[in-house]
Amino acid sequence: MDGFRVAIVGATGMVGKEFIEVLQQRKFPISQIRFFASDRSAGKKVLFAQKEYEVQETADDSFTDIDIAFFSAGSDISKRFAPIAARCGAVVVDNSAAFRMDPAVPLVVPEVNAFDIKKHKGIIANPNCSTIQMVVALNPLHKINPIKRVIVTTFQSVSGTGAAAIDELATQSKQILGQQEITKSVYPHQIAFNVFPHIDSFLENAYTKEEWKMVEETRKIMHADDMLISATCARVPVFVGHSEAVNIEFTNAINPDEVRKVLAQSPGVRLLDSPSTNQYPTPFSVAGTDDTFVGRIRRDVSVNNGIVMWIVADNVRKGAALNAVQIAEEMIKNNWLHQGV
Amino acid sequence: MDGFRVAIVGATGMVGKEFIEVLQQRKFPISQIRFFASDRSAGKKVLFAQKEYEVQETADDSFTDIDIAFFSAGSDISKRFAPIAARCGAVVVDNSAAFRMDPAVPLVVPEVNAFDIKKHKGIIANPNCSTIQMVVALNPLHKINPIKRVIVTTFQSVSGTGAAAIDELATQSKQILGQQEITKSVYPHQIAFNVFPHIDSFLENAYTKEEWKMVEETRKIMHADDMLISATCARVPVFVGHSEAVNIEFTNAINPDEVRKVLAQSPGVRLLDSPSTNQYPTPFSVAGTDDTFVGRIRRDVSVNNGIVMWIVADNVRKGAALNAVQIAEEMIKNNWLHQGV
Repeated sequence: MDGFRVAIVGATGMVGKEFIEVLQQRKFPISQIRFFASDRSAGKKVLFAQKEYEVQETADDSFTDIDIAFFSAGSDISKRFAPIAARCGAVVVDNSAAFRMDPAVPLVVPEVNAFDIKKHKGIIANPNCSTIQMVVALNPLHKINPIKRVIVTTFQSVSGTGAAAIDELATQSKQILGQQEITKSVYPHQIAFNVFPHIDSFLENAYTKEEWKMVEETRKIMHADDMLISATCARVPVFVGHSEAVNIEFTNAINPDEVRKVLAQSPGVRLLDSPSTNQYPTPFSVAGTDDTFVGRIRRDVSVNNGIVMWIVADNVRKGAALNAVQIAEEMIKNNWLHQGV
Repeated sequence: MDGFRVAIVGATGMVGKEFIEVLQQRKFPISQIRFFASDRSAGKKVLFAQKEYEVQETADDSFTDIDIAFFSAGSDISKRFAPIAARCGAVVVDNSAAFRMDPAVPLVVPEVNAFDIKKHKGIIANPNCSTIQMVVALNPLHKINPIKRVIVTTFQSVSGTGAAAIDELATQSKQILGQQEITKSVYPHQIAFNVFPHIDSFLENAYTKEEWKMVEETRKIMHADDMLISATCARVPVFVGHSEAVNIEFTNAINPDEVRKVLAQSPGVRLLDSPSTNQYPTPFSVAGTDDTFVGRIRRDVSVNNGIVMWIVADNVRKGAALNAVQIAEEMIKNNWLHQGV
């Protein structure tokens, strides 16, 4: 056999489609592939490597004879079917929040903690999009100079919500430009030409779940239980690409040139930091690419050993599908699959 | 005489038009009004209190018989004509950056440091938009519990740049929705459905001037020379209204309820902080209003005595025209005009 038997659960969703694209682009070794979704999408056709496939409804018996199952159909579907898939011998790479903070489940960004993959028991969690791009940039710096505190403010695109939110932004934008009443169905507030500091639901402590994910997931991925983190996550009228302003306090002295030197050699990171020629990453310029882009690197003048930077990545690729496929690639490369290939 | 002789310099610009609206809405005591602009705009007609006026080219002799001159025509015009106007006996309230950091010129947000107005020598500076809304919210807290450090990330609307930028956002949005090539003239990057961390030009220290204004102006207005401040300023595809995520470290313990209690009683501040009903300020909901809105108040879990909040205001009103008119109102109320009324 010259490849793996792969399943994609949530194949018709936005991240599902990105899985299909990324697997093909990277020539992921596939001997057989199957596509699953809800009963609503069952019967739809999907094109993969010039061949047409019919999407099937996800069911308890979907995962016999599957080696790797990429899940991106929401937490409820993951909670229900991921354990079944694992019991059937597949390794699940799960894009939902269902298992991320489960101590028995590795939460992995390959550039940061690929070594955690080997501890898996059939399920590996893919982190939240805004967390992934931040840890790709923070980890290489943390390794040479431990980070004490991080303050992050995000500018998150609507693709993080899904295809319906992309439609809502386009529709509302047309309505406003045409001086019509706007319609709303996905978000509680107008998103076109607006900003709101509300992603996912609110917790008791008045942070949103999205903000709290950045705190907890960052600590787990980076194995930095004591790192102090505060996040504010805002939705902006951008289709694809999350941006983050990050203030970092290190343990020891550090200067912007050292930061640039480290990041220039770090896997998955691309430096774009030339203010004199207006070079810094923007979501529009980064959409469709694989790297995490960093610019606007400067001293944080308000604290000793402080650095400020601007981090941008494609939230659908590195923030979701690509990172999950990279996890699977690491697993294959290192022979950490364990299950019956 | 039952009013003052008022001049508006830059009358045809976006802030100039807002001056005209705010002066009428607030029934500013005017006995006579004159409108000035560049030679390009001279001859245009302006409507004020149901009467039509012709815009004149700003000249050295424009300011005889003027009591109060509102300037909003850029730093070069202010540098050239504001001293002339002051010598002619007018008090200039200048919206440009020309004199803000001049130690001899008061830099005023009336809710914070109205008392500084009386030291003027003919010129009073109106602060930068993003600074004004921040200090309105910070100052009442600073008075009861001195602020040690502030980290702010801004989401700034295109109206901060002017009318041409509003056109550029609308035009590019239509082009993208219509799948056409975009055209650019105001900004170095596409602003429609994009974000960039670049407002005003870059300084040697890799901060932008806009970011540095937030550092220096905040300290001057609040008389807080030792306050530690770091800012990241980003442009977002919003027409009107600036949003700010602000992490504040206080000297002593403080909790979110105390912050809410103080801000609820603070002049110019409106609390909008009910996550359970999705209530928090957004630029769209705040545009056209006079107050500085604050929401998302919570502990900064990454530091002792820390608070995070979300501050939104109309940058053309409170961030520019309204604040300048309020300065003039304070001057009149307290008899600080000094010049020949």
